[in-house]
Amino acid sequence: MRIAVDAMGGDNAPNVVVEGALLACRELGYDIVLVGDNTMIQQELFKKSAKAPHSISVCHATEVIGMDEPAALSVRRKRDASINVGARLLRDGKVDAFVSAGNTGAVVCAVALRLGLLKGVQRPGIGLIYPTLKDLCILIDVGANINPKPEHLLQYAIMGDVMQRYLFDKKTVRIGLLNVGEEEVKGTDFIKETHRLLNSSNIKFIGNVEGGDIYTGEYDVVVCDGFVGNVVLKVSESLAQTLSIFLKRKLKQGFLTQIGALLSMPAFNALKKEIDYSEHGGAPLLGVNGVCIICHGGSSAKAIKNAIREAAEFVRFEVNQHIIDALA
Amino acid sequence: MRIAVDAMGGDNAPNVVVEGALLACRELGYDIVLVGDNTMIQQELFKKSAKAPHSISVCHATEVIGMDEPAALSVRRKRDASINVGARLLRDGKVDAFVSAGNTGAVVCAVALRLGLLKGVQRPGIGLIYPTLKDLCILIDVGANINPKPEHLLQYAIMGDVMQRYLFDKKTVRIGLLNVGEEEVKGTDFIKETHRLLNSSNIKFIGNVEGGDIYTGEYDVVVCDGFVGNVVLKVSESLAQTLSIFLKRKLKQGFLTQIGALLSMPAFNALKKEIDYSEHGGAPLLGVNGVCIICHGGSSAKAIKNAIREAAEFVRFEVNQHIIDALA
Repeated sequence: MRIAVDAMGGDNAPNVVVEGALLACRELGYDIVLVGDNTMIQQELFKKSAKAPHSISVCHATEVIGMDEPAALSVRRKRDASINVGARLLRDGKVDAFVSAGNTGAVVCAVALRLGLLKGVQRPGIGLIYPTLKDLCILIDVGANINPKPEHLLQYAIMGDVMQRYLFDKKTVRIGLLNVGEEEVKGTDFIKETHRLLNSSNIKFIGNVEGGDIYTGEYDVVVCDGFVGNVVLKVSESLAQTLSIFLKRKLKQGFLTQIGALLSMPAFNALKKEIDYSEHGGAPLLGVNGVCIICHGGSSAKAIKNAIREAAEFVRFEVNQHIIDALA
Repeated sequence: MRIAVDAMGGDNAPNVVVEGALLACRELGYDIVLVGDNTMIQQELFKKSAKAPHSISVCHATEVIGMDEPAALSVRRKRDASINVGARLLRDGKVDAFVSAGNTGAVVCAVALRLGLLKGVQRPGIGLIYPTLKDLCILIDVGANINPKPEHLLQYAIMGDVMQRYLFDKKTVRIGLLNVGEEEVKGTDFIKETHRLLNSSNIKFIGNVEGGDIYTGEYDVVVCDGFVGNVVLKVSESLAQTLSIFLKRKLKQGFLTQIGALLSMPAFNALKKEIDYSEHGGAPLLGVNGVCIICHGGSSAKAIKNAIREAAEFVRFEVNQHIIDALA
């Protein structure tokens, strides 16, 4: 298993990315190709380990696409950016998968451009794996496609179904459509048409899911357009942080509550770990003709390692081949 | 000040609604007209108070629109439903405002139908008032209009601006547009056109707001289409509950963390109160030719009381007249 990792992608690159790659080499035994500025990567490797393992190599890339740069434009102009170089390694079969915590739009653009889509897929989608009160759920799409057609959402549902089946070994995959009400008549024309399509497909479509039900664990896959999905992802992430800030403020206001907070700390930490989706790996870019995992820009080294493991599992369980078969 | 309250609306009606109305009578001194089944309301009044205050009266309504009934259809068919009766009292000038925790769609429909819209307003919108890390923010629309045009969002921005100015005494009201990125070029055609409109208006438009920034307090009003707004509202509410369940599970796992939880309880309760948006009243139905406050279905008696106070302030500060002036 040989995996390319965008060493320049993310808020703390190349530092944490290199650390994550080292963890993946040591703990998981994969070959890693770090893509990015050779000098910077070598420095990081040297800082972290007197002698880097043989299973780590570097593929030099002279440019970097910043987190806030316009995606399509940068992918076209910065031909030697780490994201473009990684996508080419994947296209040329030099690696089995590509992991990046860089500019999401640029990764989607570069990988879709260089590798094209899987047979039968009309648009790629990003699948966010997140914890619910029961099992993991996948929300598709969280931002690759903000103007989808109903057929695209049907394809997302099928891709999510395959992911749950082959990656998480789910026997029955319950699919929901994010909507403003549970009744079939609710929603925009786009949603109603999508509902009709999902209903007449072979997947186990449960029906509409309201925003209040995506965390209950009653669904294994929830599909939505990339605009709504992106808002849900960012609102959820920031609300969790906001509540934690609110709670800290309150806990600081009394002496006993401060003691209580100290005693409760292990529970807070366990919760933090449970809801940290980077623990579950990154978000797969579904529908492209290759395995690509997109990580959060703020990923820790452990999150990078988990995304690398997830990429390897995606390859090993041949998720993409199963998607092609399911769509055929 | 005379306010009609839908005694049959909400998950715990008429029980908590009657209790909330009694609180409003006693603490705020308003005249309240409870709308709904006379016998049931009198029973509740009798249970809670041997002698109901003179300032509480009942307006009998023979029908009830259930929380999950189709809105438009029920409003047309159940002409004597409490929601319809309340809307007619408001139209006929027999009350100054109408408060309901009932079926949101039905309230929007009945009030817009009976009272019409304010001069210059094209579509009503629901404004959710919620706490951020700094001040209160208003998210418009959270579900009245799931297929808006860009002009509708401009009008929501203007109505939100007026609300912040006259209800919360804000001198400078910073307006944001919910989008998938901060850059002007981001988003769907609908969003780009809305951005252009907001930019060329007289309000203080700050720009695009990502989902991750609606809780920071950098904006006083955030506008979005009713589909996205409704999803944000429900996701936020359920995520807060989900996190609390997760945390309870973790706290129960250790002896010391259980002690810690007991000591921290006052902080948890204070947090719960702070983020409970019903503490800040209900969500005004903006743009209709009358004052109507929509409460959460699960509202407590205190939430009903706060919504009644909010309705009275809406009337007293002549928010609707200011909206007409601002739109002219």
